[in-house]
Amino acid sequence: MDLHTIRELVHPADTTIALLVLDGLGGLTRRQGRATELEAARTPHLDELAERGTCGLQVPVGAGIIPGSGPGHLGLFGYDPLDYQVGRGVLSALGIGFELQDGDVAARGNFCTIDDEGVVTDRRAGRISTETNRQLCERLRGIDVPGVELDVEPVKEHRFLFVLRGEGLSGEIEDTDPHEVGRPIGSPTPTVDSEAAERTHEAIADFLDEARERLGDLEPANGVLLRGFAQRPNWPMFPEVFGLEPACLASYPMYRGVSRLVGMDVEAHDGSLESKFERVGACGDDYNFFFIHEKGTDSSGEDGDFDRKVSVIEEADEHLPRLLELEPDVVLVTGDHSTPSSMKQHSWHPVPVLLEADTCRADPVSEFGEMACLQGGLGRRLPAKRLMPLALAHAGRLTKFGA
Amino acid sequence: MDLHTIRELVHPADTTIALLVLDGLGGLTRRQGRATELEAARTPHLDELAERGTCGLQVPVGAGIIPGSGPGHLGLFGYDPLDYQVGRGVLSALGIGFELQDGDVAARGNFCTIDDEGVVTDRRAGRISTETNRQLCERLRGIDVPGVELDVEPVKEHRFLFVLRGEGLSGEIEDTDPHEVGRPIGSPTPTVDSEAAERTHEAIADFLDEARERLGDLEPANGVLLRGFAQRPNWPMFPEVFGLEPACLASYPMYRGVSRLVGMDVEAHDGSLESKFERVGACGDDYNFFFIHEKGTDSSGEDGDFDRKVSVIEEADEHLPRLLELEPDVVLVTGDHSTPSSMKQHSWHPVPVLLEADTCRADPVSEFGEMACLQGGLGRRLPAKRLMPLALAHAGRLTKFGA
Repeated sequence: MDLHTIRELVHPADTTIALLVLDGLGGLTRRQGRATELEAARTPHLDELAERGTCGLQVPVGAGIIPGSGPGHLGLFGYDPLDYQVGRGVLSALGIGFELQDGDVAARGNFCTIDDEGVVTDRRAGRISTETNRQLCERLRGIDVPGVELDVEPVKEHRFLFVLRGEGLSGEIEDTDPHEVGRPIGSPTPTVDSEAAERTHEAIADFLDEARERLGDLEPANGVLLRGFAQRPNWPMFPEVFGLEPACLASYPMYRGVSRLVGMDVEAHDGSLESKFERVGACGDDYNFFFIHEKGTDSSGEDGDFDRKVSVIEEADEHLPRLLELEPDVVLVTGDHSTPSSMKQHSWHPVPVLLEADTCRADPVSEFGEMACLQGGLGRRLPAKRLMPLALAHAGRLTKFGA
Repeated sequence: MDLHTIRELVHPADTTIALLVLDGLGGLTRRQGRATELEAARTPHLDELAERGTCGLQVPVGAGIIPGSGPGHLGLFGYDPLDYQVGRGVLSALGIGFELQDGDVAARGNFCTIDDEGVVTDRRAGRISTETNRQLCERLRGIDVPGVELDVEPVKEHRFLFVLRGEGLSGEIEDTDPHEVGRPIGSPTPTVDSEAAERTHEAIADFLDEARERLGDLEPANGVLLRGFAQRPNWPMFPEVFGLEPACLASYPMYRGVSRLVGMDVEAHDGSLESKFERVGACGDDYNFFFIHEKGTDSSGEDGDFDRKVSVIEEADEHLPRLLELEPDVVLVTGDHSTPSSMKQHSWHPVPVLLEADTCRADPVSEFGEMACLQGGLGRRLPAKRLMPLALAHAGRLTKFGA
């Protein structure tokens, strides 16, 4: 079921859909325990939704695949993450909230250490501080390359974002990063034979020559590695495909960036989940699809803090009535992937999901948790990308397929 | 999720994976009974693994599809059996342990009966004895065709393996077998327009002319039918795709052959499951993936011997601790298909599977059997090819997809 097929079936209705993403929601039981974070949390409102709705477990990308935040969210937005892959340079821009324009070429950069022969001896320049990084970026930002505008934005430690802006550029450029020490820095060689790639190659080569001049006498960050050259993709937009007016209520640049990439409006709020729910109420007339993002479940999971993840979930549950009193026709609650606090990282485990609407078929699930969801009507391994068509159907926004 | 995508995500780790295949494991309840063979068997060790791990039922090829041994195993090895099809000639070579070299062309052969007009009157020559077959193969093996080496190896009854070896040959050749009686033997016509196919056509035609001479005066096997011309496929190899050093511990030529086809090393042992487990221990430093094959579950099923199949399963369970004490990081136990003893043949029924690792999410399954596995976290119809990515993930051998 591709986006084109869905789009053909979409028809208008006066209904709203709320997608609440508790980032990294899925978990594992404590080694000696009997419950995951979600199961351990007291969640009366989620349980009531689960009781009224249909539950299950969804697979963000594929069996065994550990989803990054980008692919995890694209799946929830109805895009197959394997078909809609974002270049790493673009992801990097999204991650720091840099607004790429059409045609911009972005790449990930590392400050690195090279020896006298130009051979890379440390790909991370000893993980310099973010503050040093900032000063180095300042030094590179002044570089002038004729015909293009360039930008160098510090990220964390040794990482930066490199952006070229101008007419007729291309992302079809090889990494200059050799990806291992003991090898020389590569050339930004075009991977296709086109004028745009050649032009881009020259601009990057000019930048690198000048960067070598400006960093050459420094220690340990005397070199620059670039990888993952990419341009903003030209995808079918969420509003056109699904016939919805979508608003994003998220705090972190990455999620706001992915939302913008598919054509969502990003709405302001003060950062708390409560304020996001309030904002949904305030802008309720302008939109009919709300993506509301809570980061705390993921960050507590990555910190390995089982109890904090439990608290974040309980707090989200506590605020949930503010969203429910707005009476969205369809409520979806899930995560973009699992982040078990026992693993301290994203994982491939299927993610609990609940869908609540008047048209839900009853299933035996009456509490929202990994084990309970195994018995749910949505199944145990629903591909995440199937959720949007389901939500549309429950929102009365799809016509019959075939006469 | 194709092999290429998986390969891009693989990264090294110091972990081992053990895949125990109880051939034809899945079964059906006795008509009057309440349990399948696996359910009737006393399996304390498998049950303990099921309790600790995640269970489910897997589908080797597709709904309703009865898997042959080749496709059944390819699915478990992570290859989609519909995308990776082995030519019948190659399967025939694998079945008798004939080691095909790159470029060899293999075909299945039948001794048949033809009348004076060259029309096939019995495609199996009255199912001649294997001993007669052996003598006939001897007679054909002496045939000399310039520029190619040829081999004719007896299989069972009227069946033989035909192999051409030489430079620039092709498997793109039509069957000479008309597949029904009352029709003349066909010509080994090229199905593509290439020099190699033409060359192969000529060599086979020469062979068939001489074979007619040598068999013409015999009864009832006075003719030869060839079908399923094929060359060893040029597939991505298991070690490269999954970043593993795989060893095959199997007794039967077919399973050793399929393992070699994907690049596994075949290790020696004395044939018992116990000796295979011991061998895993002995060569544990050289490999990090072990495919261990037990044939008895399938052969007892094909014999319609419910009780013997139960015994084979119980014996496997008894020896299991020898494998577990080697502490593989991931243990997978399943079959390549079902062979219910009530059906005396391979069947399409989903196959019980258990995966045990430290990172397993709890599910309600605490015994290893068809009915219990319905409640498992792996779901009821997991495509077999998804097991390898899952095993890799649990072994910490996959990186994040997207940032």
